[in-house]
Amino acid sequence: MTDSITISVDAMGGDHAPRAVIHGADLALRERKNIRFIFHGRKEQIDPLLDEFPKLKPASTVRHCEAVIAMDEKPSQALRKGKNVSSMWMAIQAVKDGEADVAISGGNTGALMAMATFCLRPMEGISRPGIAAIWPTLRSDIIVLDMGATIGADARQLVDYAILGSALARSLFDAESPTVGLLNVGTEEVKGLDYIKEAGKILQQASGAGFTYHGFVEGDDIGKGTVDVVVTEGFVGNIALKTAEGTARQVASYLRTALKANWVSMLGAFFASSALNALRRKMDPRTVNGGVFMGLNGIVIKSHGGTDEVGYKSALGLAYEMARSRLIDKIGDTMQRFPVNTAPPELPSDSEAKSA
Amino acid sequence: MTDSITISVDAMGGDHAPRAVIHGADLALRERKNIRFIFHGRKEQIDPLLDEFPKLKPASTVRHCEAVIAMDEKPSQALRKGKNVSSMWMAIQAVKDGEADVAISGGNTGALMAMATFCLRPMEGISRPGIAAIWPTLRSDIIVLDMGATIGADARQLVDYAILGSALARSLFDAESPTVGLLNVGTEEVKGLDYIKEAGKILQQASGAGFTYHGFVEGDDIGKGTVDVVVTEGFVGNIALKTAEGTARQVASYLRTALKANWVSMLGAFFASSALNALRRKMDPRTVNGGVFMGLNGIVIKSHGGTDEVGYKSALGLAYEMARSRLIDKIGDTMQRFPVNTAPPELPSDSEAKSA
Repeated sequence: MTDSITISVDAMGGDHAPRAVIHGADLALRERKNIRFIFHGRKEQIDPLLDEFPKLKPASTVRHCEAVIAMDEKPSQALRKGKNVSSMWMAIQAVKDGEADVAISGGNTGALMAMATFCLRPMEGISRPGIAAIWPTLRSDIIVLDMGATIGADARQLVDYAILGSALARSLFDAESPTVGLLNVGTEEVKGLDYIKEAGKILQQASGAGFTYHGFVEGDDIGKGTVDVVVTEGFVGNIALKTAEGTARQVASYLRTALKANWVSMLGAFFASSALNALRRKMDPRTVNGGVFMGLNGIVIKSHGGTDEVGYKSALGLAYEMARSRLIDKIGDTMQRFPVNTAPPELPSDSEAKSA
Repeated sequence: MTDSITISVDAMGGDHAPRAVIHGADLALRERKNIRFIFHGRKEQIDPLLDEFPKLKPASTVRHCEAVIAMDEKPSQALRKGKNVSSMWMAIQAVKDGEADVAISGGNTGALMAMATFCLRPMEGISRPGIAAIWPTLRSDIIVLDMGATIGADARQLVDYAILGSALARSLFDAESPTVGLLNVGTEEVKGLDYIKEAGKILQQASGAGFTYHGFVEGDDIGKGTVDVVVTEGFVGNIALKTAEGTARQVASYLRTALKANWVSMLGAFFASSALNALRRKMDPRTVNGGVFMGLNGIVIKSHGGTDEVGYKSALGLAYEMARSRLIDKIGDTMQRFPVNTAPPELPSDSEAKSA
């Protein structure tokens, strides 16, 4: 890695590609000068757009790919059709080849995860990759994973997510020993599913190895920011994320309606408009855009497909931070500190405890 | 059932019992004259409180019970200790004996579910009971279940929840054929867990039998009010509910902070105060208090344990509506209309299709 960060971009991924992607890169470059971009996609569409952004053009390389993965393509199909030829695959391949520090796409999540896993391979000791979300809370941003990379999990996979999530928290928040909680339906030791309890026991014993195990947390602890890293199985994580997004939109809609009730409330809204605009910016989903694919031999960021240039700017900023803070090294470091990182999915045995 | 509705109340359940419970009953009686209450609990605590509410007293009967179930008691312990003697059990027993139309408690959820199941027994054809929440959305209130009565589910249990939830929607919202959606991580047919897909196929075939099957819905469809009934497994439902509660509190807190930013925004908040108070009332969790235990031979309502008299008033109002609208009859009716209600947990076989 040189002083500048090279981001490999699937220029064709997402609903408003390639315009929103290229425009977002221009916005990201204004905030951080030392980025270089490799855009993968249809040259005849990308080149005219780069002409519109004269500061971005000298920081960019374009690699032509004809094939584009559709948003509704099944992962297996996408992999068969798109391997070695599509803009999505080539964006990832550039990370594997060491040409870029991080890859990003706003395309089909399932296809991106399949290609990233196939091309970059899971890190040694990690059973399955996860997708981490950066979640704004009342305290500060926190990490929640898995957001749906994998449906279903066992104790060992939750432990993997805890290792990956705490490495990400150390990268992003400069926390030396981030707190980790397991999402459950009650905070008492007795409740919940067996695999979550088992993961809790393993994390309790390993607490201190690059993270501090907090215990079980409930759904409302996410918004409170009770812990730095919330670990959960992918189906549950995806439902929680989408439910929170829906609730935030719902409350914002209630607020708009309430303030339009009569002329006195409208006058109030006028005086409070700078405060309300600040709130709108804080709640703008575009400002926290980007899921981080964790547990592969390389960093891949998934942008929301429906976002605009502001959303891409955020996701590219996240990609930059992941590369700059050497996320992959931090994961490796956490894994080395973890006492059971190469053990089978069971508790440390008595004999280990004796020999220690 | 006479013209008046009799509510059997565990007067000792919840953090502020019995005062908040009795006071809440007085508030509920002011809105609906034709309620009678049977209060179960410690007479020496309840009687002096009834003296404080002279209108409530003549509508009330007090049944003395010495034993009270603690909030942290395990369900099995509570059942062993509290059967036939505790205020919680006796409140349910009055429904079984036909003395009351509905029971309510703000006590320990696990203990209440265990006692209700043991005392009232599941309805014929229903494998396991569920807890339904009334969830405010942008469109109108909807039903979401299961909220954590049971952890883990199979296709048949999801189908049971769909039957129960649509009967509840018909009771509460006067919808003749409420729409039902299965909570999943994607709306495409291909996604999600096998048992959810299987439930989707069964519901697709049965659509029209007292409900209209909509298909899969995602987490953000809850807040949008895309369907009248959202069906999910208990662990996921509980996480979704708590995450939404946490997000609503988070956004409300952001709003308070934003409006205090400077004197102009404070002035705005002053002018908008009636609108903001209306919003606060709309988002007040006390106004939608009460989980409905579904699938038993009798109706039991769980109030939040930490709520005050206003919360109890809402939960008692919900209990009244459940009894008045003859929820149990509506469930029976939906089950009779349902083509596979006595079938084993599998898809209608080919031979059935041929003989039809």
